[in-house]
Amino acid sequence: MTFGAVMRQAIECSEQVKGNTYPNPPVGAVILDADGQVAGIGATEPPGGAHAEVVALRGAGERARGGTAVVTLEPCNHHGRTPPCVDALLASGVARVVYSVGDPNPEAAGGAQRLGAAGVEVVGGVHEAEVAAGPLREWLHKQRTGMPHVTWKFATSVDGRSAAADGSSQWITSAAARLDVHRHRAAVDAIVVGTGTVYIDDPTLTARLPDGTLAENQPLRVVVGEREISPEANVLNDDSHTMVIRTRDPHEVMRALSDRTAVLVEGGPTLAGAFLRAGVIDRILAYVAPILLGGPITAVDDVGVLSIAGAQRWRFDGVDTIGPDVRLSLVPRGS
Amino acid sequence: MTFGAVMRQAIECSEQVKGNTYPNPPVGAVILDADGQVAGIGATEPPGGAHAEVVALRGAGERARGGTAVVTLEPCNHHGRTPPCVDALLASGVARVVYSVGDPNPEAAGGAQRLGAAGVEVVGGVHEAEVAAGPLREWLHKQRTGMPHVTWKFATSVDGRSAAADGSSQWITSAAARLDVHRHRAAVDAIVVGTGTVYIDDPTLTARLPDGTLAENQPLRVVVGEREISPEANVLNDDSHTMVIRTRDPHEVMRALSDRTAVLVEGGPTLAGAFLRAGVIDRILAYVAPILLGGPITAVDDVGVLSIAGAQRWRFDGVDTIGPDVRLSLVPRGS
Repeated sequence: MTFGAVMRQAIECSEQVKGNTYPNPPVGAVILDADGQVAGIGATEPPGGAHAEVVALRGAGERARGGTAVVTLEPCNHHGRTPPCVDALLASGVARVVYSVGDPNPEAAGGAQRLGAAGVEVVGGVHEAEVAAGPLREWLHKQRTGMPHVTWKFATSVDGRSAAADGSSQWITSAAARLDVHRHRAAVDAIVVGTGTVYIDDPTLTARLPDGTLAENQPLRVVVGEREISPEANVLNDDSHTMVIRTRDPHEVMRALSDRTAVLVEGGPTLAGAFLRAGVIDRILAYVAPILLGGPITAVDDVGVLSIAGAQRWRFDGVDTIGPDVRLSLVPRGS
Repeated sequence: MTFGAVMRQAIECSEQVKGNTYPNPPVGAVILDADGQVAGIGATEPPGGAHAEVVALRGAGERARGGTAVVTLEPCNHHGRTPPCVDALLASGVARVVYSVGDPNPEAAGGAQRLGAAGVEVVGGVHEAEVAAGPLREWLHKQRTGMPHVTWKFATSVDGRSAAADGSSQWITSAAARLDVHRHRAAVDAIVVGTGTVYIDDPTLTARLPDGTLAENQPLRVVVGEREISPEANVLNDDSHTMVIRTRDPHEVMRALSDRTAVLVEGGPTLAGAFLRAGVIDRILAYVAPILLGGPITAVDDVGVLSIAGAQRWRFDGVDTIGPDVRLSLVPRGS
């Protein structure tokens, strides 16, 4: 097995804990013994728990000695709520550390350097682009900008409608696509909708598992707008916490959520348009169903574009089939 | 090389002549010599010319003896403008004929049976689904229904708009996507637009090669609607023939084009909606650009759907990346 293939295992492992590690990054780690056999595997535990390397080393025990640690993020070198991972790696006796993305956080960085100085062989940058665009995207964005990473998700017919002419919209996309949305919800810290969506759809906005039960991680539910919502609204039930922000200004919403890492905007045409015009969307996830609806209800209204020359220009970074539907992922052009 | 791989060569060969064979089917053929080496390759010539098998046999000459003919359609057994292909195959001395789709035309069918009776080994059904959904789709539709196969093509932003708020739309999709459209145009017998498109965009509606010159096959240009169009309109220039049909009824248009095999509808929201409501669209090709436009101009208006329960339900049969854009292909569900 090459380090690249082992890194893929570490990546998969890290995807499992996305949403459960805030404010820590979702990291995955695999320990190979001296013969190159997998001896331990781990991912970041919930806040206050162990980092990925420590979980994986725990599994490997003495087999780590002379082996290799494969980690999606450069091992940290600072004392937060847990001791530095570099200490644990040095104590384990691994001969080699392979990591993907360097730690951009000046406080935590220096891990690779300290490991190298202690005689450990260090290899960085393995599948770096994949990890930076994937499991660590939101966390790296937060480190870089100080603001949460915002994804706008919408379900649409092939002709760009989010509901039929009479307003009915359940369901445009398939059960498979909705399950994928729940997986995304479980991986974020907050979900934002407008009061309009609460009025029309009365959603619970929870993250559910395939069997219908609540996922372990329930993101904060955020309702945005100036209208009053009913105290009976599902979004106010006990399944998770809810924040109501009396504003229509996306920047104000962003300030209120500035301590979060990953935010999902699921609002209707008006809210989505406001966030797009404000330029605070970092990723678009479009679930496109193979249906036609026509009529006046589009997934987004005004995005601040008057002429084709001024179009909001993005870049497809993912085109996937989800059951009978297609999921298009877009990121800002030039990113 | 397996027969499956050789059939792929025959399929590719047949794709090259799509649009140039009307009313004959676009067929591809490969002749292997007795050692399994490619000895000849061919595709249907323009009407009045040779069928694919005859072109390929001509290339193979004496090397066909004891060899194998691989053809995308069951060799014909009737005397049209050219003698039956079965005669040519028997005269060539091939020991085996491998074909994909059986001939649905009762007049031309019986080829496999006659070859078998003459002692030739016959294998049918190789990559049948692929050929039936691909190079022969339009021709088979015509044989089955007696009517042309109609594809609706549109270019759209991710949010379902065909133009910005001010009406500007050049260009929504990339040069690569537009080149792909020209390839499709060259493979059909007629292109339909509404008078509205002629007024707004004044298109030439020709099929052009990558270097900008006219493709060999120029489909008939069909302008549909009750408004008068200017005698100066580009669509009336000398690059191809043009038919003007003074109606808004898609069924009337279909009757006027009933001798054609493949029709491409490139109309705006009104024309597309009329064809979709009339149920005469057999395939949808959506070129989706990674841009957002918002505003009032959607790719299609009214498709005759009031409620989500009555949505027009299709099935994705192709999701492809074309340069920076995505091409979604849809066919009726259950087909």
